[in-house]
Amino acid sequence: MKIELELAAQRLREHDKILILTHKNPDGDTLGSGFGLYYGLKQLGKQVYLRNSDELPAKFSYFYDSQMTAEFEPDYIVSVDVGDTKLLGTKLEQYADKIDLCIDHHVSNTLYAKETYLDGAASSVSEILFFLLELLGIWFDEQIANCLYTGLVTDTGCFKFSNTGVKTHLAAARLIEFGADYERINRDMFETKSFARIALERMVLDGMEFYFDRRCAYVLVTRAMMEEAGADYTTFDGISAITRQIEGVDVGLTLREIGADDYKISVRTSAAVNASELCRKFDGGGHVRAAGCTLKGNIADVKRKLLAAAQEMLGSR
Amino acid sequence: MKIELELAAQRLREHDKILILTHKNPDGDTLGSGFGLYYGLKQLGKQVYLRNSDELPAKFSYFYDSQMTAEFEPDYIVSVDVGDTKLLGTKLEQYADKIDLCIDHHVSNTLYAKETYLDGAASSVSEILFFLLELLGIWFDEQIANCLYTGLVTDTGCFKFSNTGVKTHLAAARLIEFGADYERINRDMFETKSFARIALERMVLDGMEFYFDRRCAYVLVTRAMMEEAGADYTTFDGISAITRQIEGVDVGLTLREIGADDYKISVRTSAAVNASELCRKFDGGGHVRAAGCTLKGNIADVKRKLLAAAQEMLGSR
Ligand SMILES: [Mn+2]
Ligand SMILES: [Mn+2]
Repeated sequence: MKIELELAAQRLREHDKILILTHKNPDGDTLGSGFGLYYGLKQLGKQVYLRNSDELPAKFSYFYDSQMTAEFEPDYIVSVDVGDTKLLGTKLEQYADKIDLCIDHHVSNTLYAKETYLDGAASSVSEILFFLLELLGIWFDEQIANCLYTGLVTDTGCFKFSNTGVKTHLAAARLIEFGADYERINRDMFETKSFARIALERMVLDGMEFYFDRRCAYVLVTRAMMEEAGADYTTFDGISAITRQIEGVDVGLTLREIGADDYKISVRTSAAVNASELCRKFDGGGHVRAAGCTLKGNIADVKRKLLAAAQEMLGSR
Repeated sequence: MKIELELAAQRLREHDKILILTHKNPDGDTLGSGFGLYYGLKQLGKQVYLRNSDELPAKFSYFYDSQMTAEFEPDYIVSVDVGDTKLLGTKLEQYADKIDLCIDHHVSNTLYAKETYLDGAASSVSEILFFLLELLGIWFDEQIANCLYTGLVTDTGCFKFSNTGVKTHLAAARLIEFGADYERINRDMFETKSFARIALERMVLDGMEFYFDRRCAYVLVTRAMMEEAGADYTTFDGISAITRQIEGVDVGLTLREIGADDYKISVRTSAAVNASELCRKFDGGGHVRAAGCTLKGNIADVKRKLLAAAQEMLGSR
């Protein structure tokens, strides 16, 4: 059942031993909103514990609580930024049908919890948490400000993406006022690249090919390249975006070899081409400007098919 | 003489034929705040004209007024984002001692105008303009919102830099509410790279060298490389930042050959090293984390001197 934010606040006020669940492969929003809630509830004198199926990434360690202890039986279970119980991961799936409250911004939320506060217009759960903690009368210290600010910026590409809203900036203004270390957070989240990432970017730029009056950019990343760069799938994040960033490119095709004759294709497009439509030709899908598909076969065939599809999409307008 | 924002608003209200001056090599803030003021004053029924010594870059054309006419003798001259009359450029230097009002955020402003509204804490003049136009009772239409939003984001690296403040986000929230096309603006300003830029980045990544346990990154961009990439000095913007973005790099040295045996050096550092102090060894200077200097001599000598200075700075802590 969907509930209002005021009722969610009341539920939290009424309980004393609260377990917070976050999604697997945790990102800045699930952990930022989770720890924001954690510290807020702590202030109210409650016992709180936060769990994740995976190890918490070192990247966000500046807002973890090294003193966190779990010696209690929860009387209330809350999930944050978890649109589907499948995303709880192996260690937390035991809680799938025991979740009392879900706080989320994914419109695709399956409403698995007893009660759900869902705001599909919110940039992030961290944005929602800002207003929820205000309702709870929490004092925003630097720790909480850092948690929520991190979730805001990681889910919006630092206020660039279309999910950014008026409330996102209002929350950011207040979080900065409360001491969020925004300069350092943004540098760590957006301006720091690993050696492996730099090596991979270099290979991608070296190997990029252009077709159809440079309206299509094509790049293949082989397993050998990944290995040479010391890169894994996390390093690959954002690599697919490079093609579309190039002036005049309407279709960017980034192929990653995931096995013998097996390729994962990321398609990025300008407003001129529908990426999802292109990928549907190969049983893939996604969003209008970012979509994906997989193709099997030798690379010459795969490339020929993809370029033909891209050409068709470009020609059709 | 420095004046308050209210008085600046009153001065603008009292005059009817207003000339707006912007700085040479115009950026998003001088033009964004200039055109924001232009459209605001137009709404008040005034005759307004905006001038620049250089041609207006196509990049910001979405907020230019193609109907702008200059057939009037101004009774009031305002400069925006111009810290020093030297920055007016050749075509506008005729106005150097005739400027009635300067609106600026550079603490180094030389107070050349009859009256100056200076807010060194503002991220941008566009941020100041938001509050000034509010005082003037202007209706913020999409056009004005786009102008001011552009200035906000270009001067703050999209809310990343330390000059971003509470008021910056409050202004952004309102500008989005008023229809600023923030997604497109951010894509155009930050996510689009020219072919020349991509070519230059590729050469920079290919040629980068590391010293002192990878704590120092060194890269040389020759005139031949610039030519091969089809790059000019505007393409070079942001290239110096690449070195410091690499994990673990405390000193990034980017050398640009500007003539025979003549090099311009951009130094970018982490919090561990003072860039300005390093550059002062070579009669340069700048900020704590971004500074510059020039060195003459053959490249082997120049490189040796720079690396020695970098090593000293790294060793001293
Ligand atoms: Mn999220
Ligand atoms: Mn400025």
